[in-house]
Amino acid sequence: MLSAMKHVTLLLLSGALFGQPTPLTVSAPPNQLPPSVATRLSPADRELFGKLMQVGLETAWAAVTSEGYPQNFVNELTPLHTGRRMVGRARTMRYLPNRKDLRDKLYSQGPQLNYRSAEEAQPGEVLVFDTGGESRSTVSGAITTTRFLMRGGAGIVVDGGMRDVPDLRAMPMSIYLRSGHASSVSPILMSADYQVPVRIGSVTVVPGDILIGEDHGILVIPASIVNKVLSTALSHDEQEEFQRHLLLQGEPLPGVYPTLNETNRKKFEEFKKRKK
Amino acid sequence: MLSAMKHVTLLLLSGALFGQPTPLTVSAPPNQLPPSVATRLSPADRELFGKLMQVGLETAWAAVTSEGYPQNFVNELTPLHTGRRMVGRARTMRYLPNRKDLRDKLYSQGPQLNYRSAEEAQPGEVLVFDTGGESRSTVSGAITTTRFLMRGGAGIVVDGGMRDVPDLRAMPMSIYLRSGHASSVSPILMSADYQVPVRIGSVTVVPGDILIGEDHGILVIPASIVNKVLSTALSHDEQEEFQRHLLLQGEPLPGVYPTLNETNRKKFEEFKKRKK
Amino acid sequence: MLSAMKHVTLLLLSGALFGQPTPLTVSAPPNQLPPSVATRLSPADRELFGKLMQVGLETAWAAVTSEGYPQNFVNELTPLHTGRRMVGRARTMRYLPNRKDLRDKLYSQGPQLNYRSAEEAQPGEVLVFDTGGESRSTVSGAITTTRFLMRGGAGIVVDGGMRDVPDLRAMPMSIYLRSGHASSVSPILMSADYQVPVRIGSVTVVPGDILIGEDHGILVIPASIVNKVLSTALSHDEQEEFQRHLLLQGEPLPGVYPTLNETNRKKFEEFKKRKK
Amino acid sequence: MLSAMKHVTLLLLSGALFGQPTPLTVSAPPNQLPPSVATRLSPADRELFGKLMQVGLETAWAAVTSEGYPQNFVNELTPLHTGRRMVGRARTMRYLPNRKDLRDKLYSQGPQLNYRSAEEAQPGEVLVFDTGGESRSTVSGAITTTRFLMRGGAGIVVDGGMRDVPDLRAMPMSIYLRSGHASSVSPILMSADYQVPVRIGSVTVVPGDILIGEDHGILVIPASIVNKVLSTALSHDEQEEFQRHLLLQGEPLPGVYPTLNETNRKKFEEFKKRKK
Amino acid sequence: MLSAMKHVTLLLLSGALFGQPTPLTVSAPPNQLPPSVATRLSPADRELFGKLMQVGLETAWAAVTSEGYPQNFVNELTPLHTGRRMVGRARTMRYLPNRKDLRDKLYSQGPQLNYRSAEEAQPGEVLVFDTGGESRSTVSGAITTTRFLMRGGAGIVVDGGMRDVPDLRAMPMSIYLRSGHASSVSPILMSADYQVPVRIGSVTVVPGDILIGEDHGILVIPASIVNKVLSTALSHDEQEEFQRHLLLQGEPLPGVYPTLNETNRKKFEEFKKRKK
Amino acid sequence: MLSAMKHVTLLLLSGALFGQPTPLTVSAPPNQLPPSVATRLSPADRELFGKLMQVGLETAWAAVTSEGYPQNFVNELTPLHTGRRMVGRARTMRYLPNRKDLRDKLYSQGPQLNYRSAEEAQPGEVLVFDTGGESRSTVSGAITTTRFLMRGGAGIVVDGGMRDVPDLRAMPMSIYLRSGHASSVSPILMSADYQVPVRIGSVTVVPGDILIGEDHGILVIPASIVNKVLSTALSHDEQEEFQRHLLLQGEPLPGVYPTLNETNRKKFEEFKKRKK
Repeated sequence: MLSAMKHVTLLLLSGALFGQPTPLTVSAPPNQLPPSVATRLSPADRELFGKLMQVGLETAWAAVTSEGYPQNFVNELTPLHTGRRMVGRARTMRYLPNRKDLRDKLYSQGPQLNYRSAEEAQPGEVLVFDTGGESRSTVSGAITTTRFLMRGGAGIVVDGGMRDVPDLRAMPMSIYLRSGHASSVSPILMSADYQVPVRIGSVTVVPGDILIGEDHGILVIPASIVNKVLSTALSHDEQEEFQRHLLLQGEPLPGVYPTLNETNRKKFEEFKKRKK
Repeated sequence: MLSAMKHVTLLLLSGALFGQPTPLTVSAPPNQLPPSVATRLSPADRELFGKLMQVGLETAWAAVTSEGYPQNFVNELTPLHTGRRMVGRARTMRYLPNRKDLRDKLYSQGPQLNYRSAEEAQPGEVLVFDTGGESRSTVSGAITTTRFLMRGGAGIVVDGGMRDVPDLRAMPMSIYLRSGHASSVSPILMSADYQVPVRIGSVTVVPGDILIGEDHGILVIPASIVNKVLSTALSHDEQEEFQRHLLLQGEPLPGVYPTLNETNRKKFEEFKKRKK
Repeated sequence: MLSAMKHVTLLLLSGALFGQPTPLTVSAPPNQLPPSVATRLSPADRELFGKLMQVGLETAWAAVTSEGYPQNFVNELTPLHTGRRMVGRARTMRYLPNRKDLRDKLYSQGPQLNYRSAEEAQPGEVLVFDTGGESRSTVSGAITTTRFLMRGGAGIVVDGGMRDVPDLRAMPMSIYLRSGHASSVSPILMSADYQVPVRIGSVTVVPGDILIGEDHGILVIPASIVNKVLSTALSHDEQEEFQRHLLLQGEPLPGVYPTLNETNRKKFEEFKKRKK
Repeated sequence: MLSAMKHVTLLLLSGALFGQPTPLTVSAPPNQLPPSVATRLSPADRELFGKLMQVGLETAWAAVTSEGYPQNFVNELTPLHTGRRMVGRARTMRYLPNRKDLRDKLYSQGPQLNYRSAEEAQPGEVLVFDTGGESRSTVSGAITTTRFLMRGGAGIVVDGGMRDVPDLRAMPMSIYLRSGHASSVSPILMSADYQVPVRIGSVTVVPGDILIGEDHGILVIPASIVNKVLSTALSHDEQEEFQRHLLLQGEPLPGVYPTLNETNRKKFEEFKKRKK
Repeated sequence: MLSAMKHVTLLLLSGALFGQPTPLTVSAPPNQLPPSVATRLSPADRELFGKLMQVGLETAWAAVTSEGYPQNFVNELTPLHTGRRMVGRARTMRYLPNRKDLRDKLYSQGPQLNYRSAEEAQPGEVLVFDTGGESRSTVSGAITTTRFLMRGGAGIVVDGGMRDVPDLRAMPMSIYLRSGHASSVSPILMSADYQVPVRIGSVTVVPGDILIGEDHGILVIPASIVNKVLSTALSHDEQEEFQRHLLLQGEPLPGVYPTLNETNRKKFEEFKKRKK
Repeated sequence: MLSAMKHVTLLLLSGALFGQPTPLTVSAPPNQLPPSVATRLSPADRELFGKLMQVGLETAWAAVTSEGYPQNFVNELTPLHTGRRMVGRARTMRYLPNRKDLRDKLYSQGPQLNYRSAEEAQPGEVLVFDTGGESRSTVSGAITTTRFLMRGGAGIVVDGGMRDVPDLRAMPMSIYLRSGHASSVSPILMSADYQVPVRIGSVTVVPGDILIGEDHGILVIPASIVNKVLSTALSHDEQEEFQRHLLLQGEPLPGVYPTLNETNRKKFEEFKKRKK
C-alpha cells in the first residue's frame, strides 16, 4: 500500500501538475493512529508507530520475508473494520479447552488472563489470544476492552471468538477474530499461558512482536528487525509511488513495473529530488 | 451490549459530569425497530419489542443459559447488515432436497411455503428457513419479501441462500443467511414442513420463539421464559453500565469487573438512585 | 433485481401517485458504470453495457439457465465492495502451483500473465484468474491494477488471493476474491495459460464471456446468447416491477406473484402503456 | 458393479473358455445378505432383496435418475465396512439440537427414538438418523443395535455419530456415519420425529425407500419405482458384463464401450443365448 | 465396548448354555497389549493397563464425564489401524509454525522434541504432538519411532502429520493423526514446548494423562481419577454384558435397556454370582 | 520407507544374527509391481520401475525438494488401497464444469478423454484427472478401467470422484481419489484438455512425470531428475537401514539418528561391505 504521504502527493501530482481532469483514486486514504493510542505513546514509540502507519504493508512483507521469515502473515481471521490499519506490539495469551483440574490450578494463581492482560497492557499494545480456532466460546467482551482502551490498547487479535461485537465495532480499536458469540469464556475454554509464543492462523507470534494489520491480514514483524524492515520498505514504497504516478499518466507497464527502465530510473531520481 | 438508554446516559456521565474532554465511544448506537414493524405491532408487543431492542444480548444469553438452554445461540450465519438489531417471533419452515414424488404430493396441498409464510406472517415475525445449509439454491427473494414487509415482517433467517441480495440489503429488515445465489428454489430444494421445530446452525428453533439478532449471531429465547430473561438481563445491564462508567473514569478492573467491591457496590446503589 | 429505471418509477408510483406517506425501500439504488470504463467503451458496447447494468440479475440467470446453462453462477467468492454491480467481458488466465522446470519454460516465453493481461486489456474487460482456490499467495496488486484501470478495466475475479486490498477497495472497480494476502505470486504460484477456459468456483468461464456480478455472485453469460438473454430478462423485469408495485399497494401474493391473475394481467397491460 | 452371477461367469469365461493364463480380477466378489437378515425376510422380500444384492449400483443409479430422481445418491458418509453391500428399507428419524422444553414434551410421549425404532424394526430395515451432521454426539450404540440385529435389521445410516464403533464393526450389518464418539445422545441431541422425510447428506429419504449402499455411497430408490429400476438396470448389467468380457479378451474400447458396434451387438445376442 | 473377558463369556453363554445355533457376533475381539509394551511395564502398571484394555470405552467416558470432565474425548483424528485399542500415558509436546529467531533459540537448548521424547519415553507412554492441525508437514517418522518402540512406547497422537506411514502401520503401536506427508518437520514447523498442557482436537491433554483410544477416538483420563473411573466403569460393563446377553436371547428392549426391570435385576444378581 | 531388500535384510539381521528372540516389525512388507504392469514394461522401464518400487518415499521426497521442487507431494487424496505402492508415468487430463457450448465444441473433436486416455495409455502409466475437487460427479468407472488395465495401466489419480468403487478396489491397480459417486461424468463435468499441466491438490503434474504413491500421498518427480533422485535417495536409504538396525539392537538415538557419530559411521562402512 502507498503511504499516507504518498497518497496526498499522488493526488497533487496527477490532479494538478499533470492536468488530468478526473484523477482516478488508486490508493486508500491515509492511516491514522487513534487518539486513544497516540496520546499515550512514548515519544520514541510515537515516531516508530508513525512510520508503521505509513509503510506499505506489502513492501514490509517483502522485507520481512527476505530477512528469513516467510511464514509471518496471518490471513485466516476477519477484521471487524475495513479501511483501518492496526499497528501495535503483541501481548500474547494461550487458551485451552476447559478442564476442571487444570482450570482449578491455573485460576488459583490469579485472574483470567483477559482481565490480567487488559490491566497490564502498555500503550500501543495488541492483545493476542490463541484459542485454536474455537468458535463456540469467546475470550473477552466490551467491558474488559473498555479498560484496555483506557490503557492505550491498540488492537485485539483472536484466533477464536469475542462477544459484544457491535460495541467492539464502535470502539476506536482494530479487532481481528474468527467469529462472534454471546457466550462467556467458560465452559468451553480457559486461559492457560501468558506472554508465551502462540499460534495465530499459521503464524507464530512472540510477545513484543510488531503487528501491522489491514483488511486482508496481519504482518508479524520480530522486534529485532523492525527498523531494518521499515528502512527497506519505505525506500521501496518511494519507487512504487513513482511507478504508480507514471501509470496514472498513461505509461504502459513495460519499463515501469515491476522494474524501471533506464529512462524512468533517471526520472525517478529527479522525482525524489523534487519531493525533498 | 449496553442498552440504548444506557448508551445515552454513559455519554452524559462521562462527557459532562466527569469532565473528560474527548470521551471514548465504547458502545454501539441505540437500536431502533423499523417503522414498518413498529407501526403494525399490538400495544403489548410494542412494549415487549421495546425491551428486546434495549436488553444486552450477552446478558440475555446468560439468563437463557441459566434457565437451562445452553445451546441457543446461532453464530453460523452471516447478517446482510451490520449495526442493526433484529427482534422478532419465529415462523419456521423446513426445506428438503428436491424429490419428485414428495414434491408432487406436498405442492398439491398448497403453495410453496415461502409464499404461504409471507402471506400469513403477523407483524414482528421472523421467517426461519431450515435448508440444511444448502448453498446452491435459494428459498426466497425480493418480491415475496416485499409482501412480507407489508405484513410487518421483522426479519429472515435462512440456513441456506436467498436471491436478490442488493434489494434485500436495501430493505428495512434484518436478514441472516449462509450465502446468496441467483437461483430459484427448485431444482435443488422444495418446501416440506411448516411451523415445526427446525435446526438453524446448531440450535433448535420452535415456532413462536423470540429471536434477538446482532452482527455476531442470534439468540433464541423460548417464549415461555422471555419475561424472566428480560427482567434478569435488564437488571444486570444496569450494573454493567455502571461498571463501564467506572472504567471510563480510569478505574482499574479489580474491584470493578467482573465483580464490584464493597465501595463500588455502594456507589452503584447511589448511581441507581440518581438515575430514577 | 429491479433495474435502475424501474427503481425510480416505483418510488414515484408508490410515493406520489398512490399517496402512501412513507414508502418502503424495496430495491437497491440504480447501478452505474464507473466513468473510467464508460468513457472508454465503444458506442456499441456502451449500449450493451447499459442494458447489462439495468437488467435483473435473477431474471438474467433464469434466461441463461433456460438456454441450457444451469451451472453458470459463481457464488464461492467474496466481493470487495457491496452495492456495486460489475459488468464486463472475461479475459482469462490459469495459474498453477509453482514448479521450477515449468516456470522456467513459461516465463522464458514472456512476462507473468498478470502484467500481460493488464497491458492487453480492452475497455470493459474483467480479468479472470483461476488459481484453484489458493489462499497463501496472490496473483496481482494495486500497481498492476492501476494500469488495468487506465486501460478501462471493469473488474477482477480471482479464485484465490490479491494483495494491496485497501488500495483495491478504493478503486472504481469491482473485485471478487477468496482471500487477501501480502505475498507476491511466487513462490507458491505461477501463471500458466492465457485466454483458455478456466474454472471459477463451480463454473467454467470462457474468454469473451459476459459477466454480471453483484454482492452475492457472478452470472456468466456466453457471448453468443447475451442478446437473447437480455431481451427475455428485461421483459420479465417489467412484470416484476409491476408485481412489486401491486404488493406495495397492499395486495396479497395470490393473484400477483409468481403469476398474475386475469384482472392484474389487464392492469399490467395498462401499466406498460402508461410507462411509454 | 457387476452382479454376483456375472462375477462368477466372467471368471469362467475369461479363465477357462478363452484360455487366458492369469485372468485379471476386475470386479468385486459377489454380495451376500447376512443370515441374520436373510432368515427373517418374507419370501417376497427374499426375492426382492436377492435382486437388490445382484444389481449394479451404477446402472441402478442411472435408472433412478432417468425416472426423474437425479439427487438420490448419498456420498457424504463413511461406511464402517468396505466390500459389503447394504440393502434394506428405510425407517427414518429426525434428531435436533437438545432443548429442554421440547425435549420434556417429546420424551413424555415415549422412549427415545433409537430405542423405539430398534424395537419396532421389521426384517430387512435400515435405521436412518438425520442429525444435521452433528459430530460431537451419537444416536445409538452396540446394545440397542444388538436388539435391532435380533429383529433382522440390515443397516444403519447416520448423518452424525455412533458409539461402540469396534463392536458395531464386528456385527453382520452395514453402517454409514459421519464420525464416531463415546458420548451418549444427550446433552447435545434429542430425538424428535419418527418416520418422516429426512435429509441425509444432500438427499431426502422417505420411510419405506429402498436403499443400496456400497463403499462409495448409498442409492435411495423410491419404493414405487423399485421394480422398474431393477428391470432396467439388470438388463443393462448384462450388456456391461459382455462389454467387460470383450475388453478382457483384449478388444479396444471403440466398438465396445460405451456403445457396442454392430458386430459386437450380434455377438452380445449370442452371448445372452448361451447364458440361458 | 464389552471387555475381553465379557466377550468370551458372552459367546459361551449364548452359544453353549442357551443353545442358540448360530450366535451373532455383537462385540469386537478382546484387546491385547502389544508384547513390546507389556514386557516392559512395571507390575503395577501391568495391572493398571490390563484393566484399561478391558474396560468399556463408553462406560469409561460416562464415568469421566460424571467426574466433571465433559470435554475429554478426541474424535478429530484418524487412526492408522482399526480394531486395535491404544492404552498409555501422555508425554506431550507443542509444535509451532517455524520462525527463525525462535527456532534458533529453542534448538540451541537441545535436540528437536521428537528425538528427545522418543529417547526419554517410559514404557507404556504415548507421545502427544500438538501442531495445530498442520497438514503440510510432519513431526516424526519410522526411524525415531523405532527407538520409541524399543523404549516400550505404546502410541502416538498427532494433531498434524507423520511420514513413513506404511512402516508405521506395520509397527505394533497405535497411531492417530490428521494426515500423512513425506516432508520433514521443517521448514513449516518447529518443536517448542515439552511436557506442557496441549490441545488435541478440542481436548486439553496434560502430561501423565491416561489415554484409551479406539477406532473412533481417544478418551483422555486425568491420572488422579483413573482408579475411580475404572471401578465405576467396570461395574457398569458387567450390567451391559448381562443386558446384551438378554437381548441375544430374544428379549425386547423395554425392561432390559437402558434400565433393567425388577425381574431382570434379580436375574442380573444371579448372573453375577454365577460368574464368580 | 525402507526398501524391499532392506526389509528382508533387517529381519535377518535382527532376528538371526543378533539373537533377538521376537524381533519387532518396524517396516512395511516389500512393494511389488502388479504382474499386469510388470509383464508389459520395456526392459529399460522394468529396471527403472524396480528401483522406484524399492526407493524410500521420504528419501526420494528429500532429493526432489533439494533439486528445487518443494511443492511436489500430493496428500489431499484418499487411496482406495493401503499397503500398496503406486509407481508410474503421468498421462494428464483437465476436466471442467459442464457447459453446453464448450462441450459441443470439445466433444465434436473426439471421444471423452477418459475413453481416449485408457485406449492410448502405455504400460506403466497413471491416468491423472484434474476436476478441481468436484465430488458430485465422476470421471471414469470399472469398464473403462478394465481396458486401461489390459493396456498395462498402473494407477489412477483423480482430484475428484470415480464410480464402481468396489470393482476398482478389486483390481490390481492403485487408485487415489477425493470421493466416490454412482454418477456418470455429465451433467456436472466434461473433459477439456489432454496431456497438459494440471493441478492435483496443491501440486502441478506434467505429462510424463514419474509418480510414487503410498498410503499417505503421491510424490511427483519431474522426469528429467528421476535418475539423480533415485541415486541420491537409494544411497541415503542404505544409511537409514543401518540406523534402524542399530536402534533395533537397543542403541539410543544420539550418535545414531539423524546423524551417525564417528564410531557408528565406521560400523556403517563395514555394514555396507558385508552386504555386498
